Amino acid sequence: MRRLIRPLVRHLRPYVPGEQPKIKGLIKLNTNENPYPPSPRVLAALREAVGDSLRLYPDPNWTSLRQKLAPHYGFDPDEVIVANGSDETLALATRAFAGEGEKLGYFWPSYSLYPVLSDIQGTQRVEFPLDEHFQIVAHTPLLHQLRDVKLLFVTNPNAPSGVWIQRVELQRVIEAMKGVVLIDEAYVDFCQENCLDFVREYPNVIVARTMSKSYSLAGMRIGFAFGSKELVAGLMKVKDSYNVNRLSQVAAIAAIEDQAHFRENVRKVIATRERVRGALEKLGFFVYPSQANYLFARPAKANAADLYQFLRDGKILVRYFSAPRINEFVRISIGTDEEMNTLLHRTEEWMRL
Amino acid sequence: MRRLIRPLVRHLRPYVPGEQPKIKGLIKLNTNENPYPPSPRVLAALREAVGDSLRLYPDPNWTSLRQKLAPHYGFDPDEVIVANGSDETLALATRAFAGEGEKLGYFWPSYSLYPVLSDIQGTQRVEFPLDEHFQIVAHTPLLHQLRDVKLLFVTNPNAPSGVWIQRVELQRVIEAMKGVVLIDEAYVDFCQENCLDFVREYPNVIVARTMSKSYSLAGMRIGFAFGSKELVAGLMKVKDSYNVNRLSQVAAIAAIEDQAHFRENVRKVIATRERVRGALEKLGFFVYPSQANYLFARPAKANAADLYQFLRDGKILVRYFSAPRINEFVRISIGTDEEMNTLLHRTEEWMRL
Repeated sequence: MRRLIRPLVRHLRPYVPGEQPKIKGLIKLNTNENPYPPSPRVLAALREAVGDSLRLYPDPNWTSLRQKLAPHYGFDPDEVIVANGSDETLALATRAFAGEGEKLGYFWPSYSLYPVLSDIQGTQRVEFPLDEHFQIVAHTPLLHQLRDVKLLFVTNPNAPSGVWIQRVELQRVIEAMKGVVLIDEAYVDFCQENCLDFVREYPNVIVARTMSKSYSLAGMRIGFAFGSKELVAGLMKVKDSYNVNRLSQVAAIAAIEDQAHFRENVRKVIATRERVRGALEKLGFFVYPSQANYLFARPAKANAADLYQFLRDGKILVRYFSAPRINEFVRISIGTDEEMNTLLHRTEEWMRL
Repeated sequence: MRRLIRPLVRHLRPYVPGEQPKIKGLIKLNTNENPYPPSPRVLAALREAVGDSLRLYPDPNWTSLRQKLAPHYGFDPDEVIVANGSDETLALATRAFAGEGEKLGYFWPSYSLYPVLSDIQGTQRVEFPLDEHFQIVAHTPLLHQLRDVKLLFVTNPNAPSGVWIQRVELQRVIEAMKGVVLIDEAYVDFCQENCLDFVREYPNVIVARTMSKSYSLAGMRIGFAFGSKELVAGLMKVKDSYNVNRLSQVAAIAAIEDQAHFRENVRKVIATRERVRGALEKLGFFVYPSQANYLFARPAKANAADLYQFLRDGKILVRYFSAPRINEFVRISIGTDEEMNTLLHRTEEWMRL
């Protein structure tokens, strides 16, 4: 019965998300979730919204949520799209901007969903290597290659390194492109900079955000993005009508309203990140300067897969990627201070082995 | 900037969902929502689940929910897929089974999302007319035409008529097909029959269900579908990893567990449907024999658009479709008995005009 499935899908290597195991006492540092709970105001709003109205469809245009997001980020409501997590934003972009056989590009190493989205859409995928500092080098050959790319994904700060890609290099890329550049700012709230102003400056830029990390709402699936009215209208056309459920819309509104909680939450994660980075460096690790809520660290012993397994055996789950260029590293999401102390303690044990 | 959007999407006429207006005191009978609240056990489970764990991603494979759905419907867990509403199930099917330029078919009149999904995917859409009783006539020319259709959508009971399409005709269609037949049973819980056994009998059949109507959970976006392991695996490959949020998974489990509430809810809707159908017929309407939670009714005066507007002016919202063949009807979702009495009262007023 395999013949019923499109050949393109049959041969597809699906995206593998980080594990969500149900192990008691597990310290889970593998999927860049926030270690701190969502705002109490979000939880209160959700409890309040659980009721008879769940029998009704959600607002297909997220009117109230858009009216909250737009002024907060300095846009008009019709320059905002809301999605069932950022993954949906990315999938919608492939459908709206890149057709079968056309070029879909992304820098590499980066979010491993991009090649999968390209394969699902049947686009021709083009990988542009980042340099050893995980930076774009916008030299002439690259700019030339970008000219017929219909859609380009850039994660900034980069995943899995956490490195911030310089705005000036990114601008050269955007200016060379005739297609759409989607800047995936999933981790930008943990960073000093962002590229939101590019949406105003360049008509071919979309900036995608998520509430999964900085707002501690991965479980609610809330992504949103900013772009020109025209690009947003294109994305709207290819989405499922009721793509964001009632409760997620309620949670997102309440989350934006509690900026004090958000800021404090982000501040704590950044403080822990910097402390752990220093500690890992003292242990001889090479660690990229991260502007995200994770650290990408290479042990001096240079056997990251072994460290991953050792930590896992001790109920600490980090992420290990076996792909070339990144297989000497572990990616460690920032947990609570206590969790990170346990991680550092176990890592020292591993080094003494 | 329109050139940034794929020509196919640029020229797309998007699906228009029924309105979700915020008019106080409105009697909303336009989008086939259930007039009764979800199970109190669902609401309790949701309130219980609102907490710190929302910071974590949902289970991408809906393990607990699948383990609940599968035995309830007589399948194995890997014969079940869960989606962000049935609309997502349908979109996944287009992506998994029908490629650009290939044929995607559906009977007509039916759910007006099908042609839009086909256009988004760039498939060649083929409409097969239902007869005047909204039945399939599986004659030889039709069976011949179906042979190279990669994916065929059938809503059963049909929308917007509510008519149940005979199983025997459907079987002839399925047997003639080399591609996948997706039977959209969104409304089947209000019907005496279903086609779930076809999943076992035919390896090319998928049956899609939803919790939006019979479980009063339109706001939570929960669709699910049954098919062979192979077809389900194909659908899994093209979905977003975390397509169903944590709270929707919790709600769905609790909904299945409260079958008593479900049955009573469905019983009430059916009783009201039959009573209102009789009343409309007494008023001279032609009403299709509905096996769904709505009635498709043609006024004797034969000006359905006028009736729609008259009802709307009186704060009763029903659905009117201006497309040929169905533009002499209004589609009325079944509300509470009180709501339907108001509807009947206003309709009588209109007839006396």
